[in-house]
Amino acid sequence: MEDTRKELEVVRLGQIALKLDENGLIPAVVQKYDTGEVLMVAWVSEESLRLTFATGTTWFWSRSRQELWNKGATSGNVQQVRRVLLDCDADTLVFEVDAAGPACHTGHSTCFYRELREE
Amino acid sequence: MEDTRKELEVVRLGQIALKLDENGLIPAVVQKYDTGEVLMVAWVSEESLRLTFATGTTWFWSRSRQELWNKGATSGNVQQVRRVLLDCDADTLVFEVDAAGPACHTGHSTCFYRELREE
Repeated sequence: MEDTRKELEVVRLGQIALKLDENGLIPAVVQKYDTGEVLMVAWVSEESLRLTFATGTTWFWSRSRQELWNKGATSGNVQQVRRVLLDCDADTLVFEVDAAGPACHTGHSTCFYRELREE
Repeated sequence: MEDTRKELEVVRLGQIALKLDENGLIPAVVQKYDTGEVLMVAWVSEESLRLTFATGTTWFWSRSRQELWNKGATSGNVQQVRRVLLDCDADTLVFEVDAAGPACHTGHSTCFYRELREE
């Protein structure tokens, strides 16, 4: 992937007010660091973000199960975090990761394995 | 970008029930088709998705302004849609686009121009 973000501005967590939604969550796009492939989008709580930084692996908040979720802990396909990016509005994250196995529970490398076309 | 999605399954809009949230919206990750760069994340309504397919350019629903929004209509940096991808849960989209100019209102090519680090 062409890296147009070499000169990223660095923001420290305490310096920025993340805009969490009404449920205390912020969406995170998980992107493969080496290929740029978008693997999945999931929800991050303050606690899961803290765990992501602490462990170097992706943690999310499962809205359906209402629990913290270390991606790949069950399947073994843990995502190693290379960088966390923040958008201009401070209301969306990108997790750039190394991922050994598929991200999707269907076995596809990415959850975005379907193309949507109009009728 | 390494294209691991050459053999995408094709789903037609009428064949699938998109899982819209309680506001009738679904998030869309906008990704640059040639480089894989994630440019922005924005919200899509049924009407904005219809307009996206009809015009071949990205349309969103602005939650702050409560109106439809053709990205780049003002700045001239319209995003041409190459493919729309759908995730396994049918609750998130990826718009793969060609973008002539910067995606971010700050002038950065992407809205994700900041790296977030812990304290």
